[in-house]
Amino acid sequence: MKKTEGGVTAPRGFLAAGAAAGIKKNQKDMAMIYSRKPCRAAGTFTKNLVKAAPVKWDQEVVYEGGTVQAVVVNSGVANACTGKEGYDCCLETARKAALELNLTYDQVLVASTGVIGAQIPVEKIKKGIEMMVPLLSESREAGEMAAEAIMTTDTVKKEIAVSFELGGKTVTLGGMCKGSGMIHPNMCTMLSFLTTDACISKEMLQKALSASVEDTYNMVSVDGDTSTNDTVLLLANGMAENPEITEEGEEYRAFLQALNQVNTCLAKQIAGDGEGATALFEVKVIGAAEKEQAVTLSKSIITSNLTKAAIFGHDANWGRILCAMGYSGARFDPDKVDLYFESAAGRLKIIENGVSTGYSEEEATRILSEKEVTAVADLKMGEASATAWGCDLTYDYVKINADYRS
Amino acid sequence: MKKTEGGVTAPRGFLAAGAAAGIKKNQKDMAMIYSRKPCRAAGTFTKNLVKAAPVKWDQEVVYEGGTVQAVVVNSGVANACTGKEGYDCCLETARKAALELNLTYDQVLVASTGVIGAQIPVEKIKKGIEMMVPLLSESREAGEMAAEAIMTTDTVKKEIAVSFELGGKTVTLGGMCKGSGMIHPNMCTMLSFLTTDACISKEMLQKALSASVEDTYNMVSVDGDTSTNDTVLLLANGMAENPEITEEGEEYRAFLQALNQVNTCLAKQIAGDGEGATALFEVKVIGAAEKEQAVTLSKSIITSNLTKAAIFGHDANWGRILCAMGYSGARFDPDKVDLYFESAAGRLKIIENGVSTGYSEEEATRILSEKEVTAVADLKMGEASATAWGCDLTYDYVKINADYRS
Repeated sequence: MKKTEGGVTAPRGFLAAGAAAGIKKNQKDMAMIYSRKPCRAAGTFTKNLVKAAPVKWDQEVVYEGGTVQAVVVNSGVANACTGKEGYDCCLETARKAALELNLTYDQVLVASTGVIGAQIPVEKIKKGIEMMVPLLSESREAGEMAAEAIMTTDTVKKEIAVSFELGGKTVTLGGMCKGSGMIHPNMCTMLSFLTTDACISKEMLQKALSASVEDTYNMVSVDGDTSTNDTVLLLANGMAENPEITEEGEEYRAFLQALNQVNTCLAKQIAGDGEGATALFEVKVIGAAEKEQAVTLSKSIITSNLTKAAIFGHDANWGRILCAMGYSGARFDPDKVDLYFESAAGRLKIIENGVSTGYSEEEATRILSEKEVTAVADLKMGEASATAWGCDLTYDYVKINADYRS
Repeated sequence: MKKTEGGVTAPRGFLAAGAAAGIKKNQKDMAMIYSRKPCRAAGTFTKNLVKAAPVKWDQEVVYEGGTVQAVVVNSGVANACTGKEGYDCCLETARKAALELNLTYDQVLVASTGVIGAQIPVEKIKKGIEMMVPLLSESREAGEMAAEAIMTTDTVKKEIAVSFELGGKTVTLGGMCKGSGMIHPNMCTMLSFLTTDACISKEMLQKALSASVEDTYNMVSVDGDTSTNDTVLLLANGMAENPEITEEGEEYRAFLQALNQVNTCLAKQIAGDGEGATALFEVKVIGAAEKEQAVTLSKSIITSNLTKAAIFGHDANWGRILCAMGYSGARFDPDKVDLYFESAAGRLKIIENGVSTGYSEEEATRILSEKEVTAVADLKMGEASATAWGCDLTYDYVKINADYRS
């Protein structure tokens, strides 16, 4: 498997476009993905009881089981908490795109990201669709335009593509994403769009996506503010002409491995680009009795405000980490825990069996001053482990979230 | 029932003292409470799996069931994650206080608040005890000295006392507290000390405290960072000579009512004095089908970083509140929710049946610019309700938590 250039337009037969439809001021605010051939579609969606209209629409389309050939995305307005009017807007968006692309409206997926509560300016959306259709292209630049158009408080566009062999054919998997329902709470959305020319049954496609999301996007720092719009969509058009994957086995595992690589890369890009973040904070819990326990503990640490503030301060305040583990609800023996900090600047054992090793604060601060820092907690109970990704809590996080809308 | 002056020294027979023992630089850092007569003691403690040494010590003393006559508190060091050495320090502290006060060491409760992981300078603690014993006094000033000595990042001392009638006798209940395991995570402690001259059985005393804590301290904003040291202690010396309360009934309810008033007042003082806070944020969930649901929803809102940041920005970003309700895990119908903001500046209906009322943003910002603001969410499902207290998320919260220790 090798990393290749580009994003959603890297696989055969996928076109993309981005445009400024006037939803946001003087910025690209709409993106479109189109496949030359009908795609099998898989999706995972927010577990928030309050679901945005496009989430409800996409769930119907994906679960209904027909083929999909286009995705229309807007940034600026989330179309959440908008009642029937908001849902009708999704329907109109799908109908308009279907008309322009010669599809049926149930072949069009819709996604939105932005402020909650406001209604979508549907006429601008329709205008944007008309603008994008002629711009659709398989070029790398077209993929970049789309990746830029879905950005909100993101500071960089997020793309990746990999190629690998399936049944003697070269298969490509590409993706783009934005924000994070957790790290970008006020933009209230993590959106990820994945495209592949692999030939795989709808059932196995959904199975692979559901499995991969658990270990990737769902391990990105949750500050509790799980979005109303979180959506991950995976489209497969089969143009690589590999023998169709219809069951678990070597081919399926190869596809899943590629999917995990792509999603892990995108998930880390999201965490590292968290609102106001100055550092990517990775937490590994190892030596756990079972994975469930490692997941609970790593997420509890990554979401602790005081731990995140300490990372911002380059302060090895390990007591906050042990405290966060203690209230996580997971069982473990605090008196057996070893804790390490590591980064490009080195690795340091901070506590052994629950108490300080008498480490050098200067050395710890030097390690914590890197752009990517990792905390490793060893429970010494078993072989299970989990990794979670987040970022530090900074003045800018507060500024962005306090000033937004105002 | 009437509010009276003072705090822990307001009830008959309770003395207090505060001193600077050199644990912190040039600040009072030790407090002592002493009762002329042996007290029945009740306590509630942190649910964190990682418990500070003094929490373990107090649990043994309180649960063992003997009488208690003194409490020794230090600020500056939490004595958490300190292993056997930390526990032995509690034992030495109790032994020293017992020696100086002519008690047995199992009549002495101990509490600590401060940084996690550091060992307590036990010689300074012993010196502090020697300093405080001659300072012990029933005066209001002595109570204030104690209330000041337990402060960490608190900006104001927190005291209250009330008097009421029990069986024809005037009974007084006083209290002091500091910080918050939730709002003051880096100081990792909410400590509350309550004294009363009421005559009540140990069983009913514990029953009243456990019930009261649920609706007061446990409803203060939890940013997830539940402390390793949280402790609430209630001492009753019976000197009011009211007929002993030994069962539920009118007298018990009168005592519980007074206890709730004292604890609610202290809990709100804690929330309003949250690290970096500029406003007390109260959340009422009404019209719930059951209390459990109202508690879950109100706590989810009060702990939402993005909601707290919006309050700091005086921004009526109601979508964040509905979002926080949605991911709380509690069941409700988002399309039935009404939401109001209220403060000294007025009351405004923000959303009706899940969608915006088209309210005036200026009016909303005016209401949210007060020092105490309330959000009321009506589920329209039943008669149950719950109230939670928190504060806004500010630059100073990040500053305090990033710079601490550094």
